[in-house]
Amino acid sequence: MITLRGYFRSSAAYRCRIAFNLKGVPYELVPVHLRRDGGEQKKPAYRALNPQALVPALQIDGAILTQSLAIIEWLDETHPDPPLLPVDRNERARARAFAQAIACDIHPLQNLRVLDYLKTELGQPQAVLDAWCRHWIGEGLSACEALLARAGQPGSFAFGDRPGLADICLVPQLFSADRFGIDLTAMPRLTAVRAACEALPAFAAAHPSRQPDSE
Amino acid sequence: MITLRGYFRSSAAYRCRIAFNLKGVPYELVPVHLRRDGGEQKKPAYRALNPQALVPALQIDGAILTQSLAIIEWLDETHPDPPLLPVDRNERARARAFAQAIACDIHPLQNLRVLDYLKTELGQPQAVLDAWCRHWIGEGLSACEALLARAGQPGSFAFGDRPGLADICLVPQLFSADRFGIDLTAMPRLTAVRAACEALPAFAAAHPSRQPDSE
Repeated sequence: MITLRGYFRSSAAYRCRIAFNLKGVPYELVPVHLRRDGGEQKKPAYRALNPQALVPALQIDGAILTQSLAIIEWLDETHPDPPLLPVDRNERARARAFAQAIACDIHPLQNLRVLDYLKTELGQPQAVLDAWCRHWIGEGLSACEALLARAGQPGSFAFGDRPGLADICLVPQLFSADRFGIDLTAMPRLTAVRAACEALPAFAAAHPSRQPDSE
Repeated sequence: MITLRGYFRSSAAYRCRIAFNLKGVPYELVPVHLRRDGGEQKKPAYRALNPQALVPALQIDGAILTQSLAIIEWLDETHPDPPLLPVDRNERARARAFAQAIACDIHPLQNLRVLDYLKTELGQPQAVLDAWCRHWIGEGLSACEALLARAGQPGSFAFGDRPGLADICLVPQLFSADRFGIDLTAMPRLTAVRAACEALPAFAAAHPSRQPDSE
C-alpha cells in the first residue's frame, strides 16, 4: 500500500494527488496539519519520515520518498502509462523546466515557513506578506506564460494533448495565486490550460476543497 | 555547439558546468553579469532566451533550455555515460529528492533577487540578510545531512560510488554556505562528499574561481 502524507492546501501534496489520480494508482491519504499544535510536520514523528519537515512524504513498502517532483518522476518510472513527460528530449526538458520554474522559483518563496519567518523573525505585517506573495507569484507566472508562448503549445495542455508534469505543477500554483488575489488576465495560456485540466476527474478529485482534512 | 549562459558565482550555472565536465561534453561559456548595469539577466536580449531572467540558459541547435535540473536531466538522457542518477528507482527518487531539497528549498531563498527584494523593498539591513541566508542554508543542509544518513551512503559520494545529480547540487550549495559563514562541523557526511567531489577534475574545473568572468 502507498501512503501519502500531506496537507489539503499544500501545493506539493496537491501535485502528488493529481499525479496518482492521473495514473490511476490508489493511495491512502494521511493528513499532516501544518498549523495545529505548532505544526505537526515539525514533530519528531514526522521528521523521522521527512527530515525537511515539509509535506509530502510518500511511504511505500519499506521506503520513504520525499519532494513532490521526485515522487512524480518515481511514479512515472514505476507506472509508465499514461506518461507524464513528452517523449522528445528537448520537449521533456521544457516540460521539466516549466515545472521547476514553479517548484523552485515560485512556490518555495510563498511557502508557510517563509511567511512565518517574515512575520515572526522580521516582524513584517500581513500587508507586506501579501505583497511579497503577489510579487513572486505574479512575476513567476508571467515567466511561465512566456515559456508556454515560446513552446507553441500544440495541444490543450501545457506541453501537448495530454496532461503531464507541467500541468500538475501549474494547477496548484494557480489555486494559490487565486488565494493571494493575483490578476491572471494577462496570462490567457495558463488559464486555458487550467480550464482543460479542471475538466478532468483526476484534477477535480485532487482539489484542496475535496480532501478529508479540508477546512 | 552548446552554449551555456551563466555567471561564475551562480549555484545553478555551477551545477551545469560540473555536469558537462563529468560527461565530457564540450560547451562554450557566455557570461551574463548579474550585477553590472542593473543586471544583464534582466535586459530584453537575455529575457528572450530565458523569460525568468535567471541563469543558466542553454542554447543547442535551434533550442533553448532553462532550469539547471532540467538541463542536467536532458544531458543525462542525451549523453547517458557516465550516468548521473542511480539505476534503482527508489534510489533515483532519493537522489532527485536530495537535489531538489537544495534546488527548491535552499537556493531560491538565498538567491540574489530575493536578497535584493529584502533590502530594497523591505528596507532590511545587511545583518538581517545575512541571518536570513544562514537560517535557510543551515536548516536546509541539516536536513540534507539527515537524508544522507538515512540513505546509508554506500559509497564516497552522496548516492553511491560515483558522482551524480545530488553531488552536483551539493557542492555549489556548500560553496555558498562558506560565503555566508555556515558552520558545517555537524555535517560530516556532506563535507566528506564534498571532499570526494573536489578531488575530481570535473568539479575542480567548474569552481567559480576558475571561470573567465570570476572576480
